[in-house]
Amino acid sequence: MSTQTHITPLHPARPLVGHVHLVGAGPGDPELLTLRAHRLICQAHWIVHDRLIAPEILALAADSAERINVGKQGFGKSWGQPDINALLIRLAQTGRTVVRLKSGDPTLFGRLDEETSALDEAGITWSVVPGITAASAASAALGQSLTRRQRNSSIQLVTGHDMQGFAAHDWRSLARSGNVFAVYMGIRAARFMQGHLLMQGAAAHTPVSIVEDVSRPTQRIIAATLGTLVTQLTQYEMTGPAILLYGLEPQQARAAARSCQQAAV
Amino acid sequence: MSTQTHITPLHPARPLVGHVHLVGAGPGDPELLTLRAHRLICQAHWIVHDRLIAPEILALAADSAERINVGKQGFGKSWGQPDINALLIRLAQTGRTVVRLKSGDPTLFGRLDEETSALDEAGITWSVVPGITAASAASAALGQSLTRRQRNSSIQLVTGHDMQGFAAHDWRSLARSGNVFAVYMGIRAARFMQGHLLMQGAAAHTPVSIVEDVSRPTQRIIAATLGTLVTQLTQYEMTGPAILLYGLEPQQARAAARSCQQAAV
Repeated sequence: MSTQTHITPLHPARPLVGHVHLVGAGPGDPELLTLRAHRLICQAHWIVHDRLIAPEILALAADSAERINVGKQGFGKSWGQPDINALLIRLAQTGRTVVRLKSGDPTLFGRLDEETSALDEAGITWSVVPGITAASAASAALGQSLTRRQRNSSIQLVTGHDMQGFAAHDWRSLARSGNVFAVYMGIRAARFMQGHLLMQGAAAHTPVSIVEDVSRPTQRIIAATLGTLVTQLTQYEMTGPAILLYGLEPQQARAAARSCQQAAV
Repeated sequence: MSTQTHITPLHPARPLVGHVHLVGAGPGDPELLTLRAHRLICQAHWIVHDRLIAPEILALAADSAERINVGKQGFGKSWGQPDINALLIRLAQTGRTVVRLKSGDPTLFGRLDEETSALDEAGITWSVVPGITAASAASAALGQSLTRRQRNSSIQLVTGHDMQGFAAHDWRSLARSGNVFAVYMGIRAARFMQGHLLMQGAAAHTPVSIVEDVSRPTQRIIAATLGTLVTQLTQYEMTGPAILLYGLEPQQARAAARSCQQAAV
């Protein structure tokens, strides 16, 4: 645990009832916080947060609030899930407001259940505040819908990684013509996914948009294709957190392609 | 068009540059608005909104703001998409702040592209503000993740309806054991989906949670299964907007089942 955290010891004769708010911080832009997330951050005594939470969001908390970064960073101490669970329980037992702040939406790729199960076992109540997930913010930035009538009536959100490494998916279903899906944590898995999708018959010219640092001032959008994806990730040296939107191209690229077609007619 | 709308005529000698904010209102609870949505609603001169936008959210706008309901309601006049597009263009051309307020997240089942294409053709700029989608808020209400490590590394969001009626999906892929997906506008399509999923080998005891009026004071959560889904929808007379979460049961139901198993050991 960080040396800057000072946990009030729980007085055994006066058990305090704890509560943890598991709160989605959205993709990074503080204006994409929900009103509830904003209120809870302002009220929090303890904020236990992931590495990727934007400093501007952490700055919204009271000066007296303790911020504990449980994300792995550089050569810093890394927190295992059991350590995070134990920390949340101890903080909740102080009876003060605990906000567990997670990037994006805690219900999506947020390891929510590990923490809520531990809180349940310790008899601590909790509630979940949903957040804007990166796929929504990325497609808003592209100026395109994730779903569109007569194109796709479903959208899949997949992760590039799971506990075993690159995540296994139903590649044949994903490779279907006209399909749209979003890949979270997709940069390192890009070559692996590209291979599987091409092998299942996906067209190399299928558009893939890459949105790095979604909603932040450093946001970059690259219009790639399934065929050029890996080359372009390297070319643009994309290393920040990014989301891949398979089957979608940025609205500007689409408009440009349309006017080229018109010019060619 | 409603008789209460008064559109300032555009002076042809002084063309005004218009802009439309396409804004997600989230599932209903005003506290689930983003800070940006809240700010734009407060600043708006015109709010063009769907039927399902909560009155508490519309009440946030200035007294002087004009609210135009373009949703179909009872025997009221219904707006076609071309009418809505034309309205947005005319309002934007007044040069005042136009907010197109959509339920949930405009990038998901929101018919966003129809409106942005029309605005593009009219030379009117626009931007998209993502919102909390119903699946996130529903799973937060269940106290369960949409994704969980070692259970599902992807989640599909599908619609029960498309332009042709009940939406066609890759039922075999959806029916896979351990799969989790959310169905928007799923109540009327429930029997149709139930049949397809059972036919593709999905187990009748697969949990399905139904969340009606997500995040509103009238919210109801029903723990059903694929087998009992249709019966329970009838039994509980669910007629409000609802989302089905296939493969997930409410956390309380899960905890109860666990303690039953422990008691039986």
